[in-house]
Amino acid sequence: MNKKREYLVERINTMKSFLCIGLDPDIDKIPAFYRNSSSPLLNFCADVVHNSFDHVVAYKINIAFFESQGPEGWRQLEELVKLIPNECFVIADAKRADIGNTSSHYAKYYFERLNVDALTLHPYMGVDSLEPFLNYHNKWSVILALTSNKGSNDFEKLKIENQQYLFESVIQKFNSTEFADQIMFVIGATNPEYMQQIRTQAPNSFFLIPGIGEQGGELEETVRKLRNKDGGMLINVSRKILFPNGLETTMDDIRTSILDYANQMKSLF
Amino acid sequence: MNKKREYLVERINTMKSFLCIGLDPDIDKIPAFYRNSSSPLLNFCADVVHNSFDHVVAYKINIAFFESQGPEGWRQLEELVKLIPNECFVIADAKRADIGNTSSHYAKYYFERLNVDALTLHPYMGVDSLEPFLNYHNKWSVILALTSNKGSNDFEKLKIENQQYLFESVIQKFNSTEFADQIMFVIGATNPEYMQQIRTQAPNSFFLIPGIGEQGGELEETVRKLRNKDGGMLINVSRKILFPNGLETTMDDIRTSILDYANQMKSLF
Repeated sequence: MNKKREYLVERINTMKSFLCIGLDPDIDKIPAFYRNSSSPLLNFCADVVHNSFDHVVAYKINIAFFESQGPEGWRQLEELVKLIPNECFVIADAKRADIGNTSSHYAKYYFERLNVDALTLHPYMGVDSLEPFLNYHNKWSVILALTSNKGSNDFEKLKIENQQYLFESVIQKFNSTEFADQIMFVIGATNPEYMQQIRTQAPNSFFLIPGIGEQGGELEETVRKLRNKDGGMLINVSRKILFPNGLETTMDDIRTSILDYANQMKSLF
Repeated sequence: MNKKREYLVERINTMKSFLCIGLDPDIDKIPAFYRNSSSPLLNFCADVVHNSFDHVVAYKINIAFFESQGPEGWRQLEELVKLIPNECFVIADAKRADIGNTSSHYAKYYFERLNVDALTLHPYMGVDSLEPFLNYHNKWSVILALTSNKGSNDFEKLKIENQQYLFESVIQKFNSTEFADQIMFVIGATNPEYMQQIRTQAPNSFFLIPGIGEQGGELEETVRKLRNKDGGMLINVSRKILFPNGLETTMDDIRTSILDYANQMKSLF
């Protein structure tokens, strides 16, 4: 299914939600019930999906947690993607990017074989390094701009020649390509002081917002400062939904957190 | 085996070479003989390794070409790493990086399970995003600085506040950490005009140099401008060694290219 801009706008408005659940199945943190099964990552995530798909807009799958388990992890990843209901928007959070010849192989894997709707990408190597992803016009390229970690001070917030921050230059550069309509930018919720200027700079862009919950970002302020007429964002919550009670977390706890976030979003909509 | 700085310096000087073979087993380009086997990526790369390990310092394995084949590609990758002779220095060219919690899972995979000596990384998200890799003190973090593609103009060569280029700021920032001795920077051979100032800025750093061969970088000029008392670099050649005659390439052709590059390096040593 083609889940371009129109589809995403409609789904956000139908669900009255920006909620994206981050599927981060950390093998050391998932409940023992799943950890001891033959497909722990898959079984845990599948249960989370079954308990949430009618309350969320999207899922963001953190590839590192599958990659770290070797070929067996990738098998579970491929099965997981197949069982997510087709109406949900699926982001592979892999943060890839390389020279064109190599990027085209990553693009082929994520956009053809895995067939997710969106993939996260590093901008450092410039526009041509991401063109093999951008050339999939029915898919979304989700480009890191201003991330939620403290290291965002090191380079992303450096001022460049024209007094822009580097992350603003990233947004401007990619939004000036022909691909702007299929690009989303990552903006960490831990950066509320930059949100108004970011929305002014990119009035029509979609943003993927990590950093709510465990990392301390505020939901209400983020929605107020970044929403536009289309909705214009997906708000990711991972650990606060998956592990609300640490190692003692049950699927009931997870369902409670999911409903709690879904209701919070609805009340802000 | 611990292949820290002293090991690498000795191996470069013993081999009288900077040669790193880039194992980029593009499934669409490898000879039909291998392509039709049950483990095409593994069998092709294994033959390249058997024909080269006594002439090279290092191998750089391009992870995208394995990842693009799904779980079966990862199985072949894991077998390949096991059969590379232990004296060779092995770089996984994966270009990863994420927030700390996620990076630590990538680090665990590459530095423990796969047990390669070095891993390539994106600097965009800042120092804390790479600390989980840097905390493996016996392993090398190979950080992108000035890459070989034309997109290096987009952000890497932006001038920042203090009139440094962004790539210089990356080198300076990471070299000012306690991890400087286990960090290598990627400097594309397509940027000869920046090499002298880079070596002046980072007199003791090791560089990983892509862009020789297919991308047009000059071997002799690169060696002249970047070598230091330790050698101080690994020069990667991929396509010009793996596919010198396109789809018609035989293992004899590959062996000829390997010996040719090995001899060119020796004559410059």
